[in-house]
Amino acid sequence: MSMKRTSVLLLILLSFYFSSGNCGKVLVWPTEYSHWMNMKTILDELVRRGHEVIVLTSSASILVDPSKPSTIKFEVYPTSLSKDVFEALFMKQIKRWIYDLPKYNFLSYFSHVQEISWNYYERIRHLCKDVVSNKKLMAKLQESKFDVVLADAISPCGELLAQLLKIPFVYSFRFSPGYTFEKYSGGFLFPPSYVPVVLSELSKQMTFMERIKNMLYVLYFDFWFQLIDTKNWDQFYSEVLGRPTTLSETMGKAEMWLIRTYWDFDFPRPFLPNVDFIGGHHCKPAKPLPKEMEDFVQSSGGNGVVVFSLGSMVSDLTEERANVIASALAQIPQKVLWRFDGKKPHTLGPNTKLYKWLPQNDLLGHPKTKAFITHGGNNGIYEAIYHGVPMVGIPLFADQADNIVRMKTKGAAVAVDFSTMSSTDLLNALKTVINDPIYKENAMKLSRIHQDQPIKPLDRALFWIEFVMRHRGAKHLRAAAHDLTWFQYHSLDVIGFLLACVVTVIFIITKCCLFCFQKFTKPGKKGKRD
Amino acid sequence: MSMKRTSVLLLILLSFYFSSGNCGKVLVWPTEYSHWMNMKTILDELVRRGHEVIVLTSSASILVDPSKPSTIKFEVYPTSLSKDVFEALFMKQIKRWIYDLPKYNFLSYFSHVQEISWNYYERIRHLCKDVVSNKKLMAKLQESKFDVVLADAISPCGELLAQLLKIPFVYSFRFSPGYTFEKYSGGFLFPPSYVPVVLSELSKQMTFMERIKNMLYVLYFDFWFQLIDTKNWDQFYSEVLGRPTTLSETMGKAEMWLIRTYWDFDFPRPFLPNVDFIGGHHCKPAKPLPKEMEDFVQSSGGNGVVVFSLGSMVSDLTEERANVIASALAQIPQKVLWRFDGKKPHTLGPNTKLYKWLPQNDLLGHPKTKAFITHGGNNGIYEAIYHGVPMVGIPLFADQADNIVRMKTKGAAVAVDFSTMSSTDLLNALKTVINDPIYKENAMKLSRIHQDQPIKPLDRALFWIEFVMRHRGAKHLRAAAHDLTWFQYHSLDVIGFLLACVVTVIFIITKCCLFCFQKFTKPGKKGKRD
Repeated sequence: MSMKRTSVLLLILLSFYFSSGNCGKVLVWPTEYSHWMNMKTILDELVRRGHEVIVLTSSASILVDPSKPSTIKFEVYPTSLSKDVFEALFMKQIKRWIYDLPKYNFLSYFSHVQEISWNYYERIRHLCKDVVSNKKLMAKLQESKFDVVLADAISPCGELLAQLLKIPFVYSFRFSPGYTFEKYSGGFLFPPSYVPVVLSELSKQMTFMERIKNMLYVLYFDFWFQLIDTKNWDQFYSEVLGRPTTLSETMGKAEMWLIRTYWDFDFPRPFLPNVDFIGGHHCKPAKPLPKEMEDFVQSSGGNGVVVFSLGSMVSDLTEERANVIASALAQIPQKVLWRFDGKKPHTLGPNTKLYKWLPQNDLLGHPKTKAFITHGGNNGIYEAIYHGVPMVGIPLFADQADNIVRMKTKGAAVAVDFSTMSSTDLLNALKTVINDPIYKENAMKLSRIHQDQPIKPLDRALFWIEFVMRHRGAKHLRAAAHDLTWFQYHSLDVIGFLLACVVTVIFIITKCCLFCFQKFTKPGKKGKRD
Repeated sequence: MSMKRTSVLLLILLSFYFSSGNCGKVLVWPTEYSHWMNMKTILDELVRRGHEVIVLTSSASILVDPSKPSTIKFEVYPTSLSKDVFEALFMKQIKRWIYDLPKYNFLSYFSHVQEISWNYYERIRHLCKDVVSNKKLMAKLQESKFDVVLADAISPCGELLAQLLKIPFVYSFRFSPGYTFEKYSGGFLFPPSYVPVVLSELSKQMTFMERIKNMLYVLYFDFWFQLIDTKNWDQFYSEVLGRPTTLSETMGKAEMWLIRTYWDFDFPRPFLPNVDFIGGHHCKPAKPLPKEMEDFVQSSGGNGVVVFSLGSMVSDLTEERANVIASALAQIPQKVLWRFDGKKPHTLGPNTKLYKWLPQNDLLGHPKTKAFITHGGNNGIYEAIYHGVPMVGIPLFADQADNIVRMKTKGAAVAVDFSTMSSTDLLNALKTVINDPIYKENAMKLSRIHQDQPIKPLDRALFWIEFVMRHRGAKHLRAAAHDLTWFQYHSLDVIGFLLACVVTVIFIITKCCLFCFQKFTKPGKKGKRD
């Protein structure tokens, strides 16, 4: 009877919790640059809905900047790195990826990517150690009684904090190299026959040779991830949590994975119930442009304008590349708005204006915009999809080439190679996407698909974060795959057992047959011996 | 320039189409009994939203009855079967499944299930032939210019009609035996290590022996489906479409699969982007009961009532089973409302009232309802989930035992075996779910999960049907898996090629080593020969 009373009380309390429109406390483990710009949309919406949002950021932070006016709260932790050193380290690796890596062959290329990745993860681990070893900060976080951790899965630590604070966590995520985090932590499935692995730059319709290439990429990334990259994390997490564990196991406890793509962008592939796709959640209708910019755009007349940006990390280029690009831009009848913060190229035409910053979304949503020259970052591509603008892709690093392959396959982009392109290559690419109406049609088709979803991506992201807060998790979405070892997961023990049974049966049958054969076909010899 | 103009015109036309709130024409290929009751909710909502819905039904239809008042339109086609014969055929097979099959061992059981299934598919093929060979009807359907076919995938033909009418089609679906339609037509993935195959009655947390059992079920169903069951359909479809095709290939062209479960009910498993889960879309708040029934419910006082129904197909039982059940019901303090249309059991207690029909959803939503005794049909279980009512499961046939396993695993039900249960077994089961508060708590938890979704299941179903009409399909959700042969899909050609390369390399290295070994270790012999 006492149990019954307790249960009724619990039900009343839960009903109260659900009906009172309870607002929660969200702890955020962010990632720099475009990742932060993307996540900030979610955080602003969380604040707008009445939740308290506290972002953990280091004293060396670059864009995750507490000094900027915001309704989001920041918890700044000290780190031994300075902001300048931190930024310089980022820039050094990015420049290396853009200018040095294209010179190498497959293995050298990826061994350099691996090194860049290791450098990155070493820095993230450094920051993570600065947080978890800061007893005062950890005590403050414990006392704050957060309801959920929201983390960008590309930079581990959020899941460790959630474990230490004993609260659920939700990921916002674009990808990990070779989808290894997704596979080994999230239990996602990527059949290599029709899902091109990220960083392979392959499309969904693969020839036999491309499927071989894809399989080799899968094996390469699996080897890289399994044997080398995570061991430092595993050791660190085991030490902090005081029990043997791994990065994969800890990440695998995520309640939800909010993936920053959708099928307007990515190729269809299998996924699990605790995954949702929120690609383009940051997109919104265009606002009016600043007067000077609007005047410049209007001055293009019927020809319209071209918007050109290489993303939040690249505002400068070598003189030679900048001149090649400027020369191409000078030859089109459109006006061009170029986000560029380097030395003015001498080939710059009168139709091109340089800006240190562009209101990219507002420009892409302007009716006069004819094309978008982009490095292929996820945020920019989604803004182009949202507004239905065809693209010329100049991928520079990370997933950008893969993103452009997706847009190319869907007929909304033409790609050029940054290292080797001539002015003519870029000019032809621009002429194609502007003058061939199929590119605009395809871009508009993607826009319609993007805007025609059961609910908006941002609302979906918010729904799941709030769901996890309301229900203290989302265990009903969790596949039983997480409770299996890798050989159980692949049914290797079952297949082994069944094969052993088959072999035993065949062995016994063969022995019986041989015995019968010997018994009944050689009576003479037996007789002789008798 | 002319192309440009055409493209602009096309864009204007498309924009007009999307902004005008265009209503469409839906052709429906239904399935009888509970499948029809379930689909009717979607059709009523389609009509409410202004779409024209025409259901193809045979002159022998049972529940898909054009004579009943409805806003849905029916197109009745003649068939050689009479309604009585059609109904008798159904009932014969169901009774066989309930009373005869439990006596058999694994192989006999499934060979009987297989036979029942073949009989069913033979009848459906008969009906399908009646439609596609009816030239007048087909001409009328062609002229009607439908936008989409909505079909229950368990009864093929909808996809054939869609192909003949050259329009897209959407499935509503619960399951096929062994998930074979889903795998071979839809490209769904069911990893045998953590996804118990339907009809196996296994749970998601499987022991080693259960995983072996699951693998054997997978192999059994694969063999059954691949080698035997579909050949008649393949031949029929090839003849009608005038080209070699298969049932799987034709079904695989579905734009969307609307699966009638969700993770409040089923175990989490992978799925593809063109799959959505609409389980419980038919559920709604309870309406007031008829006066006589409400008086009976109220007369239960604090003890409350138990609702008992064995679904739309079973309203009668053998005298012996009915008495065992009635005797158990007579011993509980609750009042019982039992949907029963047979001879009144002599053990019937004064607390139990028999009804030929029950307003099941309204009763389950009544605050006095303490438990639901159910055969485990999808519709009834979802009504219990929606209203948070714990269950006693008496599964009879098809997926019912699997459904009850799901509710048992989630702690919202106790199961008893229909063939072997005694009155005490049923009585104990009832006492457990009524008196142990954990069952109510778990049922309420499922209810909360069910009611806390980004959008309601019915709205999601409607969204996708309307999306397919708006965009003439949903090709962006279609995985490239459909373009591969089975050996390409499983990467067998790639694995074979890579293994051949490895073997070749090992062979060459071994040969080189042997050559070197012979060359450098036996100089004496060589010298001698010289």
